[in-house]
Amino acid sequence: MSFNPFQAVNPVDGLAFGAEYPEQSRAEVTSTITRAAGAQESFAALSLSARADLLEAIAAEVEKLRGELVSVAHLETGLPEARINGEISRTIVQLQLFAAMVRTGVHLGATIDLADPDYKPAARPDMRKVNLPIGVVAVFGASNFPFAYSVIGGDSASALAAGCTIVVKAHPSHPGTSVLTYQAVQNALQLQGLSPEIFTMVQGRNPEITHWIALADEIAAIGFTGSALVGQLLVDLSHSRSKPIPVFAEMGSLNPIFVTTAALEEKASEMGESLFDSANLGSGQFCTKPGLIFLGGDSDQFVSAMQNKMLTVGNQPLLNKGISERYNNAISELSKLPGVETIVGNIPDHGFVVQPTIFILDYQLYKANPGFSHEHFGPTTVVVKCKESDFAEIIADSDGQLTATLHLGSGEIRPELVTALSAIAGRLILNGAPTGVSVSAAQNHGGPWPSSSTHTTSVGTDSIYRFLRPVTFQGFPDELLPAALASGNPEKIERLVNGVRGLK
Amino acid sequence: MSFNPFQAVNPVDGLAFGAEYPEQSRAEVTSTITRAAGAQESFAALSLSARADLLEAIAAEVEKLRGELVSVAHLETGLPEARINGEISRTIVQLQLFAAMVRTGVHLGATIDLADPDYKPAARPDMRKVNLPIGVVAVFGASNFPFAYSVIGGDSASALAAGCTIVVKAHPSHPGTSVLTYQAVQNALQLQGLSPEIFTMVQGRNPEITHWIALADEIAAIGFTGSALVGQLLVDLSHSRSKPIPVFAEMGSLNPIFVTTAALEEKASEMGESLFDSANLGSGQFCTKPGLIFLGGDSDQFVSAMQNKMLTVGNQPLLNKGISERYNNAISELSKLPGVETIVGNIPDHGFVVQPTIFILDYQLYKANPGFSHEHFGPTTVVVKCKESDFAEIIADSDGQLTATLHLGSGEIRPELVTALSAIAGRLILNGAPTGVSVSAAQNHGGPWPSSSTHTTSVGTDSIYRFLRPVTFQGFPDELLPAALASGNPEKIERLVNGVRGLK
Repeated sequence: MSFNPFQAVNPVDGLAFGAEYPEQSRAEVTSTITRAAGAQESFAALSLSARADLLEAIAAEVEKLRGELVSVAHLETGLPEARINGEISRTIVQLQLFAAMVRTGVHLGATIDLADPDYKPAARPDMRKVNLPIGVVAVFGASNFPFAYSVIGGDSASALAAGCTIVVKAHPSHPGTSVLTYQAVQNALQLQGLSPEIFTMVQGRNPEITHWIALADEIAAIGFTGSALVGQLLVDLSHSRSKPIPVFAEMGSLNPIFVTTAALEEKASEMGESLFDSANLGSGQFCTKPGLIFLGGDSDQFVSAMQNKMLTVGNQPLLNKGISERYNNAISELSKLPGVETIVGNIPDHGFVVQPTIFILDYQLYKANPGFSHEHFGPTTVVVKCKESDFAEIIADSDGQLTATLHLGSGEIRPELVTALSAIAGRLILNGAPTGVSVSAAQNHGGPWPSSSTHTTSVGTDSIYRFLRPVTFQGFPDELLPAALASGNPEKIERLVNGVRGLK
Repeated sequence: MSFNPFQAVNPVDGLAFGAEYPEQSRAEVTSTITRAAGAQESFAALSLSARADLLEAIAAEVEKLRGELVSVAHLETGLPEARINGEISRTIVQLQLFAAMVRTGVHLGATIDLADPDYKPAARPDMRKVNLPIGVVAVFGASNFPFAYSVIGGDSASALAAGCTIVVKAHPSHPGTSVLTYQAVQNALQLQGLSPEIFTMVQGRNPEITHWIALADEIAAIGFTGSALVGQLLVDLSHSRSKPIPVFAEMGSLNPIFVTTAALEEKASEMGESLFDSANLGSGQFCTKPGLIFLGGDSDQFVSAMQNKMLTVGNQPLLNKGISERYNNAISELSKLPGVETIVGNIPDHGFVVQPTIFILDYQLYKANPGFSHEHFGPTTVVVKCKESDFAEIIADSDGQLTATLHLGSGEIRPELVTALSAIAGRLILNGAPTGVSVSAAQNHGGPWPSSSTHTTSVGTDSIYRFLRPVTFQGFPDELLPAALASGNPEKIERLVNGVRGLK
């Protein structure tokens, strides 16, 4: 029995529109998870090439639906069509990258230590280790990435690449986008002759659905991108299980920017403009938005550049009512503090459109008001006027961050700042902006708590390792070994044999 | 101020003896952690070769004290001298293996994606990722491995290799052994001209010490080998922190053995003898002890072989009073169940010596009494008479295990059992015994909950990855990069550059 049907809401006018989507009941959620679990063993046994083919087929099916996906996602999220097009391209590239990785088999980490009677301190039996899929993965779609971190985004793509079946909890902010994307995946499964239950999805606005999924015995791991509140809830739910499971939660961060005196002397306007753009990209709804800017020198020119840039910003809505309400409340509270200078942009006139805001304050005021070091999702950033000599204390007091950015003068070398920043963030950027997260092997998107719940990346090919677990086979003949570990390397993958890496 | 001094207890007679060891107060524990944290940054900056030299120097200093260490550990643990000697050798080999690994730099996972204006879906900046030490690691020594999983055992060696400073909580069952081992490490630090605070230790029997350590802000990760109870406590403590930390707890398991009809027909006596030996090695105080043996065929010959072997077992004490009391209580409870056949060995006569015990029962009785599927540390094992057709249900109902072992007849191939077992255990053994854990790259010692708290290994070179976290440097010049990521590969380590692995 389905109940509580819900509609999408257009952020531009705040009105519900279009089809009614059924919300799944507890029984339906449970049976969906059971179906995904039933498909796990056979999906895990699929050959590397068949799994890579599936990922590529999904990419092709998403591409086929691109036009329709752009239209519906634009209406449901209020994001510009160009941004949505770019995000669909990224989603397709992610799937193709994982397909290429799966073909190499490198993610299997195949490691073989041959039997050695002379091994120290005792004779060694034949030992062969391989990474196996962790089991059914629950993916919680993000509102701010309707493709790249939603139904078939990075979490789902990496989990499928690892050989895990999927239960997606679609984000209720973009239900039509989710259903259409789910259909693209189902098309690909059908084309490849694979079970539809490899990839399942549930929808609804009932917060209990999250509990049902996170507490289900069959769920082996969780991938999540979203708020610290829901991330913490998932971690708590996992901890309450008799058998806890890994929760890979990316919970956002402030992405602090540190600008030295020399940098301000050289390029204040340029930095003010580019960091304003970074903070307002996608209405400031990126987990890598620079939400805190520490200016270790003269701030006037930097702030003027930001202010001028703000005049050029048009009206853009936030993703949904909850985000816009939380944004407006936070901005209103922070504006009231004595001593804070508040610069505001356009006046909101409809729907979930909000007012871009810059707060400017000195270091003492920043230290006295913890509200400035919390993430405020939306087009706002906090500029703190301080001294370079404050940087060490600011960094030491900082929460964990996804990114930290350093702006130096030309030729300026500050290794002590780099070392300090490397302790609080998962990615450091020099003389740039934190938005724009390249999907590649060297990417790291994850940092110390509370920016993420584990020291793993949710972007780039290394994210596959979240959904794999090692198993060692001791004394097994080829007939009983996974192909990745058999003699003669039938899958022609990179392996480590007695410490030597190669295709042996 | 130190208080509550305590002595070692000789398990052979149960009497306290020798020096009084001070128990650390809260203030002392806190200041020890602060000292380790103060040494973290400079230790992390040490070159690979200097860190490898330190590991080798520690190995050499342990070797120098071998005679003294064997004497004191023998008195404190009741373990035979030959076993202790072997364990010291393993401890030394572990340190040397990590030294060799650190010299290669492979653990750094250096990954470089060069800037690429044509990258899809958007231009890629220069991105370079490296594994950095996670921070100060707390190591909780195990009672059953006074060397290999105690003060400078696998957890400490892998954490030092990763570049982490250490706070060891020594196990109060072997205080003199711990102090002497700590001294060996301090000798090595001094010889290498390094700070003594890289490696710190606290002692005591006060259970609050565990809380103080696990809740300290400066502690970044925990390595633990021991009981499910304390492992769960550490996981709970971490979860209660405002910033949770990874807890790598190895909590033991039942290590089930599955024997097919054909195997019983071919080699019942041989298996009965070798599995009895495996279950009674070190008085059954191994986390890989086979605690559950499922016989899928005629059991008579197998059981007789075990029974005959039991006659040859001499008196051996358990490690401490707590372990012997828990053992005796559990054995006494299980023996009372109607329908259980109990075979006992020598009569205990002094100290913490206990009676080796084998329980024999049928599958229905096993299913009805959960006590048989809990770990009972000490020289006991449970033999379950069942049918091969029960194996699937037994495996599906099983908790997570460190190991699972399958005995087949010659030429028998049972892939369905291998697949099922690979879902519940971290290491599978064919036609062997689970005790005897080789320290190598392909080893995996860790399995699904509750055998361990994460899917990582605590034995073998891959255990180093528990104590590393990735950080990406975007757009940095060589002068500000860690040497592992600089152009020209100054450290000559294995790196992945634009997807190609090599020494470039």
